[in-house]
Amino acid sequence: MCRVRVITLLTDFGNQDAYVGIMKGVITRINPSANIIDICHNSPPQDVLNGAYLLYTSYKYFPKGTIHVAVIDPGVGSARGIICVQTQDYLFLAPDNGLLSFIAQKEKLKRIIRVTNSNYFLPAPGSTFHGRDIFAPVAAHVSLGIRPQQLGIKIDRLEYIDIPMPVYKGVGRVEGQIISVDRFGNLITNITREYIKGLKPNQKEKEIEMVIGRKKIIGLSNTYTDVSVGKPLILFGSTGFLEVSVNRGNAQKYFKVKRNTKIRIQSPKFS
Amino acid sequence: MCRVRVITLLTDFGNQDAYVGIMKGVITRINPSANIIDICHNSPPQDVLNGAYLLYTSYKYFPKGTIHVAVIDPGVGSARGIICVQTQDYLFLAPDNGLLSFIAQKEKLKRIIRVTNSNYFLPAPGSTFHGRDIFAPVAAHVSLGIRPQQLGIKIDRLEYIDIPMPVYKGVGRVEGQIISVDRFGNLITNITREYIKGLKPNQKEKEIEMVIGRKKIIGLSNTYTDVSVGKPLILFGSTGFLEVSVNRGNAQKYFKVKRNTKIRIQSPKFS
Amino acid sequence: MCRVRVITLLTDFGNQDAYVGIMKGVITRINPSANIIDICHNSPPQDVLNGAYLLYTSYKYFPKGTIHVAVIDPGVGSARGIICVQTQDYLFLAPDNGLLSFIAQKEKLKRIIRVTNSNYFLPAPGSTFHGRDIFAPVAAHVSLGIRPQQLGIKIDRLEYIDIPMPVYKGVGRVEGQIISVDRFGNLITNITREYIKGLKPNQKEKEIEMVIGRKKIIGLSNTYTDVSVGKPLILFGSTGFLEVSVNRGNAQKYFKVKRNTKIRIQSPKFS
Repeated sequence: MCRVRVITLLTDFGNQDAYVGIMKGVITRINPSANIIDICHNSPPQDVLNGAYLLYTSYKYFPKGTIHVAVIDPGVGSARGIICVQTQDYLFLAPDNGLLSFIAQKEKLKRIIRVTNSNYFLPAPGSTFHGRDIFAPVAAHVSLGIRPQQLGIKIDRLEYIDIPMPVYKGVGRVEGQIISVDRFGNLITNITREYIKGLKPNQKEKEIEMVIGRKKIIGLSNTYTDVSVGKPLILFGSTGFLEVSVNRGNAQKYFKVKRNTKIRIQSPKFS
Repeated sequence: MCRVRVITLLTDFGNQDAYVGIMKGVITRINPSANIIDICHNSPPQDVLNGAYLLYTSYKYFPKGTIHVAVIDPGVGSARGIICVQTQDYLFLAPDNGLLSFIAQKEKLKRIIRVTNSNYFLPAPGSTFHGRDIFAPVAAHVSLGIRPQQLGIKIDRLEYIDIPMPVYKGVGRVEGQIISVDRFGNLITNITREYIKGLKPNQKEKEIEMVIGRKKIIGLSNTYTDVSVGKPLILFGSTGFLEVSVNRGNAQKYFKVKRNTKIRIQSPKFS
Repeated sequence: MCRVRVITLLTDFGNQDAYVGIMKGVITRINPSANIIDICHNSPPQDVLNGAYLLYTSYKYFPKGTIHVAVIDPGVGSARGIICVQTQDYLFLAPDNGLLSFIAQKEKLKRIIRVTNSNYFLPAPGSTFHGRDIFAPVAAHVSLGIRPQQLGIKIDRLEYIDIPMPVYKGVGRVEGQIISVDRFGNLITNITREYIKGLKPNQKEKEIEMVIGRKKIIGLSNTYTDVSVGKPLILFGSTGFLEVSVNRGNAQKYFKVKRNTKIRIQSPKFS
């Protein structure tokens, strides 16, 4: 019988080294039928927040039963734990450092296990590459049918990172920030649709304004091509967050901003 | 029964985000047996010509029946269509923006379908990430046996981009340009073998000259090592186009040129 | 019957072109069931030593029977041979240019074949892209059961590169160098544990010192977090080599050094 199960990998290991390939070797050696899919390996090094965001935007598009392995782990080798978290449809394997913060906000966590059972590790695991020595073999064993409970001890809570949340600045104004910048230079903010509704009663989406640096963008677009080539716009992007873009251009270069930059959304009368 | 079918992905989504991983999740959720192979995801953002070139150099090396999905799509969300094109051996799924221009020059197009049947899209597709909402699910459904005709309506022609073609400048001279630069700095031009034959009657390949900037390269090589280490050469590369290279070096740095730079090929007496 | 066999790819082809995708197409066309796994494609262009190092750190984590294909090949098209090397557990396919030097130091080579049988090449192979025309189809045929002996003629030895080795500088001192820098800026040296033992009788690992540029690091750590955030440390990394790191930082930026930089290890009394 083939046991085909999807294992995704999300790390900050990059593409210039063999680290990701080694993890795949370890998994395949234990479960030759595992279907390993890369989510992303170029999250900025040691940046737990960005990794948490990327995992959040992607996890639910995978088949039920997928094992999501996320290794952005600046504390590797320290006392930080490794956790296996079970939700309705998925299993997550990650360092207990906040990497699952967005997931834990969105999903009901059915079970949290602190992974301690070294029967499922590589022999003599080191202290610098748990992706190879612990995460990969544990994921492979789980894909073969090992249950989370067999991995270690049940715990009650996991670690969280501070996820930056938008803040209302009086009626009609909300301040957010850029939480991710993608390859196209799109600026993804932490503003969701509900914050627009909260600006003022019956605020029309079409009329809102965004202030970014000294510039202002008026009105919400539906698509990048709603404005002329080279012009900036705001729209709710594929992740459900408000994005700043430039039609056929690069908003990061246009506005000369970066992650964490504050932006403001407001009703027109406050302009 | 397993229905293993190859789906290739060629996009400008890059490696720093989760976009490609998300597409793979969507495909795998619909067809867990699909064999997904990356052609390239680092084509320059929104550069349809370069993407068209990359697809052209690779499509025919894949198994018959492969579904080639190409998403370089600066007009996403606009009125531009999405097309499914059937050739003798392959199916292509792409925005109707010229991305299949090289393919259409080379292959007989048996059928062109404008993809409109939302039964095969994700529910409530957005306007910014059709790779996830339309291309991935449609490709997955086709890999399961849905026929192109079921995807939408038959159309007669597709959109083309202007593919830069070499131009004869009198007898014995032809002017072309650099259409792609690879990781090694090799300069790939739009000159094919037939243009050499057209220079003058009985022109010997070994004797042709290339003028690039203020420099000249005399004679066609067969391999990079035909010249000394560090010296420039021209040869017909693996894609069938004339390339400028430097043995164990980087021609882009050597000549300080970039894509679209004009080059000239000539018979010796015109030097 | 499905013949699932792992084929790994390690090249310097990078991510901006379609070269790696094309190789996968060729393999899949010949053996649709091959399980192709990327080790790394962003080794610095034409850098055989770095590729040899990456292969060495990864090969043994893959299933027995894996076919490791390594193509870092500045001499492509020249008289350099292509070899298929068989060890106890693996097959290696590489240009005969030293890329297997580390492997040959570590493993008993059961058989070395110079690959010459063009029955297993693509028709009319060119002189610039043997990854596509020779390596990929040969690997695919081997994954289907073709034996190494069928690929060409047995030879006695392979080519080696000079692998930089540490040198004792009198009692209590050994000079090594940086052989690789990873994405995190960790500086991987050529010093292994046995060189520490050789410093002086009963040398305690905890007390050794490393001199790098004008700076000194005292004592061996077990994990990155043994020192304060932002501080440098040395430890034996996941590859078995001594590494210089900065806790939650980047040692390459901290020390402003690069590959080949000399470093020194010494017993304390020589400080």
